[in-house]
Amino acid sequence: MKAAKNSSEGWDALFFPSSIAVVGGSGDLKKPGGIVLENLKAGGFSGAIYPVNPGRREINGLKCYPDLASIPGQVDLAILAVKSHIVLPTLKECSAREIRAAIIFSSGFGEVNEAGLKDQGRIREMAAELNIRICGPNTMGMVNYLNKMQSAFVYGYRLPAMPDHPENGIALICQSGGVGCSLLQACHQRGLDVAAYVCTGNEAATDFSDYLAYFTSRPEIKMVASYMEGISDGNKFAGAAEAALAAGKPVVILKAGANEASARAARSHTGALAGSAPVYRSLFRQKGIIQVQSIGEMAAVLSLLATGRRPAGKGVAIVASSGGQAVIAADKYSGAGLELVRLGTDIQNKIARELPPFAGVSNPVDLTGLDIVIPGLFQRCAAAAAEDPGVDTLVLSHWLNEGIDSVGQLKAIAGLTDKPLALLGAMPGATPGPASGDLVKCGVAFMDDPDVAANALVKVVEYTEKARSNPGHNSPRSHTAPVVPARYRSLRPGTVLAEREVKEILTACGIQVVPELAAATAEEAAAAAQELGYPVAVKVDSPDILHKTEVDGIRLNLSGPEEVRRAFSSVTGQGARRQHGALIRGVLVQKMVSGGQELLVGISRDPVFGPVLTFGMGGIWVETLKDISMRVLPVDEGDVREMIRETKAFSILAGARGKAPLDLPAVEDILLKVALLAESWPTLAELDINPLIVLPESRGAFVVDAMAAAAGETTVL
Amino acid sequence: MKAAKNSSEGWDALFFPSSIAVVGGSGDLKKPGGIVLENLKAGGFSGAIYPVNPGRREINGLKCYPDLASIPGQVDLAILAVKSHIVLPTLKECSAREIRAAIIFSSGFGEVNEAGLKDQGRIREMAAELNIRICGPNTMGMVNYLNKMQSAFVYGYRLPAMPDHPENGIALICQSGGVGCSLLQACHQRGLDVAAYVCTGNEAATDFSDYLAYFTSRPEIKMVASYMEGISDGNKFAGAAEAALAAGKPVVILKAGANEASARAARSHTGALAGSAPVYRSLFRQKGIIQVQSIGEMAAVLSLLATGRRPAGKGVAIVASSGGQAVIAADKYSGAGLELVRLGTDIQNKIARELPPFAGVSNPVDLTGLDIVIPGLFQRCAAAAAEDPGVDTLVLSHWLNEGIDSVGQLKAIAGLTDKPLALLGAMPGATPGPASGDLVKCGVAFMDDPDVAANALVKVVEYTEKARSNPGHNSPRSHTAPVVPARYRSLRPGTVLAEREVKEILTACGIQVVPELAAATAEEAAAAAQELGYPVAVKVDSPDILHKTEVDGIRLNLSGPEEVRRAFSSVTGQGARRQHGALIRGVLVQKMVSGGQELLVGISRDPVFGPVLTFGMGGIWVETLKDISMRVLPVDEGDVREMIRETKAFSILAGARGKAPLDLPAVEDILLKVALLAESWPTLAELDINPLIVLPESRGAFVVDAMAAAAGETTVL
Repeated sequence: MKAAKNSSEGWDALFFPSSIAVVGGSGDLKKPGGIVLENLKAGGFSGAIYPVNPGRREINGLKCYPDLASIPGQVDLAILAVKSHIVLPTLKECSAREIRAAIIFSSGFGEVNEAGLKDQGRIREMAAELNIRICGPNTMGMVNYLNKMQSAFVYGYRLPAMPDHPENGIALICQSGGVGCSLLQACHQRGLDVAAYVCTGNEAATDFSDYLAYFTSRPEIKMVASYMEGISDGNKFAGAAEAALAAGKPVVILKAGANEASARAARSHTGALAGSAPVYRSLFRQKGIIQVQSIGEMAAVLSLLATGRRPAGKGVAIVASSGGQAVIAADKYSGAGLELVRLGTDIQNKIARELPPFAGVSNPVDLTGLDIVIPGLFQRCAAAAAEDPGVDTLVLSHWLNEGIDSVGQLKAIAGLTDKPLALLGAMPGATPGPASGDLVKCGVAFMDDPDVAANALVKVVEYTEKARSNPGHNSPRSHTAPVVPARYRSLRPGTVLAEREVKEILTACGIQVVPELAAATAEEAAAAAQELGYPVAVKVDSPDILHKTEVDGIRLNLSGPEEVRRAFSSVTGQGARRQHGALIRGVLVQKMVSGGQELLVGISRDPVFGPVLTFGMGGIWVETLKDISMRVLPVDEGDVREMIRETKAFSILAGARGKAPLDLPAVEDILLKVALLAESWPTLAELDINPLIVLPESRGAFVVDAMAAAAGETTVL
Repeated sequence: MKAAKNSSEGWDALFFPSSIAVVGGSGDLKKPGGIVLENLKAGGFSGAIYPVNPGRREINGLKCYPDLASIPGQVDLAILAVKSHIVLPTLKECSAREIRAAIIFSSGFGEVNEAGLKDQGRIREMAAELNIRICGPNTMGMVNYLNKMQSAFVYGYRLPAMPDHPENGIALICQSGGVGCSLLQACHQRGLDVAAYVCTGNEAATDFSDYLAYFTSRPEIKMVASYMEGISDGNKFAGAAEAALAAGKPVVILKAGANEASARAARSHTGALAGSAPVYRSLFRQKGIIQVQSIGEMAAVLSLLATGRRPAGKGVAIVASSGGQAVIAADKYSGAGLELVRLGTDIQNKIARELPPFAGVSNPVDLTGLDIVIPGLFQRCAAAAAEDPGVDTLVLSHWLNEGIDSVGQLKAIAGLTDKPLALLGAMPGATPGPASGDLVKCGVAFMDDPDVAANALVKVVEYTEKARSNPGHNSPRSHTAPVVPARYRSLRPGTVLAEREVKEILTACGIQVVPELAAATAEEAAAAAQELGYPVAVKVDSPDILHKTEVDGIRLNLSGPEEVRRAFSSVTGQGARRQHGALIRGVLVQKMVSGGQELLVGISRDPVFGPVLTFGMGGIWVETLKDISMRVLPVDEGDVREMIRETKAFSILAGARGKAPLDLPAVEDILLKVALLAESWPTLAELDINPLIVLPESRGAFVVDAMAAAAGETTVL
């Protein structure tokens, strides 16, 4: 029966309960069960609050119950502030009371040891069996300003008061209570309205993606901001992110675990799966998620988004009180990739009339500090700059000053233009204070540091473009799934395929390989070279030798039959000598392709996101430059075009130093075919085409070498 | 007579006057001459203050004089808050009164137009002629807390009050009054003691380097912090920077003008010379200057330095109230290149005894928020982590809380260790407030953002190492100056030298070039190839053709005489066809060198710093990857070793993917020889060796192609 109930019932009980039981409620303000009671009261929760504690009759004026069963009225939500071994029995009691949601503060589960992880598995099972929506365990809880509910505990921190307009607010999803509070505080300081905040804890039964999907579905939530350490189900997350993008709700994420040291720390903190930081970054880009690098940048992005204004492009004008601040802002904004448009002559003249001759009037505009003493000067110059059609965002570096009613002038500027306005705090520590919220609502975002502010604006520009175009993955595919030759379709786990086999598969997928012939003897090799035409390369052909370079098994640029014969004996001899027991089938003789660029195309499997397509420069540059782009599958034409263009080496492909551009359509075609191959062939764990040689325009791209491995234990690749 | 006076006299008058005249003194607090009088009073200046204004008898209780001549007592310093056309006559009056220093607020000089620039030149001349030390024009003035003197005007901003210990303080040199105030404010907020502040203005007679040298000489000044837009005399600056490094006084610079847009803005703001941002960056690195990217990073670096503690190395331990904050800090610190050392088992056990089982105790240490409620917990755990011998700096992410006396605990930790302590503000906006100064003096630096804090620490670690090793440029040189063949020693301005000539010069300097022979006919070319051995390359030989690729004048990998003959006709024909009138001398036949890596070595001339040595990857990668390092000449062995190692591609040179390392000593030797060539041959403006091929260990490096240009107008390179 229970399974048939509407699944939103649990969500309503969790976020919009009319009554809350606090199991382990306490009068001690140093204990979670004491802090949460205080927070519920302080937040103004209007429903019933039932402390449950067999040792107390009353806590701060609230009647206290010995157990859940003795509470007289209905209970929607239970907060469990109890020792970990009490959690499972208490969930049963919740079920008996038909409580549909629970927040489990208790620590001591998956983050501690195997026994804890097992208990956490039981929580997951019970959530499903008993139809209870569960937040936690190991969570600091949540805040829902839409319901005036602060069902959270934080040591030594008073949760911010009700924001002005939670019904038009931000939802925060945090995989750390401490960072969550920092984000809450940052929003509070900037006057950004928060609708709801959840600390997800160990996510036994409700995970990050569930909260993201829920918040996306709520009309009061306009955007989502998150601190993320890791997720376990990449597909589910991708789906939730796509829904948010389609709904026009920006998702901003501060992702921790960018390197080995911090990934280890995250694992011990919330047991977050490793996953690869570059894969997360790629998926975020694919799904239009705004990834930020610090809480300050998060606040800057949220402020820009919260104005409701969106930049039409990269054009920026800077108007500054100080010449030096103008130069710094110009540094940061143009360094971040935005365009400082040259203001039109009419606009420049208009501004020049207000200023002394030593002021700068093109862009940046330098008000020489006079805006601090001349009433209205700032407003007149800023409004003039905003009129320029090339300006998409107006950056204002201004010393806030009451004497000239800075806040009033800012509001007036906002009334004269509908372009985004970014106000930089030129003086450390000086903020619009209580006026921040008003300003944001008028369209003026406040941010501290020009460096952070510039990066934030770039990200908002990119998001706006992505949200506008968002093709999703529904664009028609021009390729049909490839047919993998039958004998490769299911391989023994861990099987590794050598060059010859992989090329057979790639050929079957319609991907060109360099002309080559297998040869079992030196004479066959010389004949093959004759047939292919010189110069040729000769490579040892062995299913057992995967890294031919390491056994000295390759000879390049051979220009005659004698060289080919010598190469044959040499590479087969080296192969046998250096790798004992390897089956040497002979050699592959390949035509040398010249005038092209070496690339790398690969497939790998991420533990969180599954198959990932990689692209980059080939050869020794791969490891040195790490100039690699990635996309989580599936991908469409737009994705592969983007991933080629985001590499640093793209300018070489597009035709560096007056050279002809290379055949990019051929590369895009191969990327799509490789992606389809990986999707239609689940056995494939790793594929490494390196190098793929791409020739100048319309001359194609050819696989020169490749190897592959089936899923399962293998350490070869 | 005047020239014979001690040059420190003017400095004393500027920074330590006993009496000040304010020409253009005013009662209007919106005018510079009014604001400065107010500031002098507010700052508590104890000497005589003489407003000069013919229209007033008295200003705010100070007797006012019609001109400098009528002031009764001695005047040490004159502040000129007058219209620009009054400046020159007033300087003459100063001289008549034997005033030895002047601050010129007035704008309208070099930053406006040619006439202004000419007047500015006159100020420079008069400073020398009249023996007056001049600050400005177009300056907001200066503050010397050592003399309780606030001889500055800022619109709408009250200068910070006297710091606790100016006699142990920071000197600020700023090429913008507005940014200067931001820096003052940032120091004030962090409790960092400022000794003096100067806004340099247009630097007519006293420039950035003069102030740097002066402050380095003052015993009260412990470090220098600067906002710089540009300097005009690179050598002078380098000398001042070397003196500061040798004196153990860190110099921290926020340099604006990182790109074209902001360089343009800086030019219009202070007329700063362009100079190249990468050259500034290189020189800063060479001279141990700490370059920061924002005011926030400046404050973080200064805080670390102001503790007086220096990190012995890159080892870091993080102790955090919140698990999430611990992960973020781990992200940023290890991402910045610091090492999160694994704490010893004994230390881990000691910490574990204080914490519940779900806390992280290796590194980062996660106190799970309990440090906010349990008195002394934070101190005990932090002190334990500091004991680990691998820890050079202790990073503390802690929510400051009065209930547990956070500040007291921090001071106690500082008493137990002499390692640097970096306190991260985990909660936006929460700072130690008035306790900041105390904490810094005890050894605890406070900083906001983990991202900024981590970068700041890396810079302090690098500075500490540089200051410790500082070999200067006095290390013995193993090379003697090369002898440039006589006929090249002085070239007509703008002369461009082609491959053959440049190689002659390089050979004379002891630099190896690839074996090659000039050939005037096809037959000579074939014979040359025979002599050199195949494969060979054939290149058109013309003093007029500098970009051989662009005229299709190169054939590579030729493996027989017929190919060489064909290449001869083809490249000479192409050369003649594509560049009409070019003198074609024939071809150069060169031995192909294989198995090496293409590099680039060059000399260019920076308008500010003079000859600059560049190094990087050769070929098409040069422009695409911009993986270039630079050093301003002169350089020593240490410099060239460093510049090779700081390129991204260094790992290729050191032996990527199991390949043999390349012959780095040969490359270092060539870099030094090229540097000496440039120093001993002032005619040389540009030299471009591209490619230089470096072979595996002990096999040398060879110049394959090169060109050069003499100083003077030329647009060829």
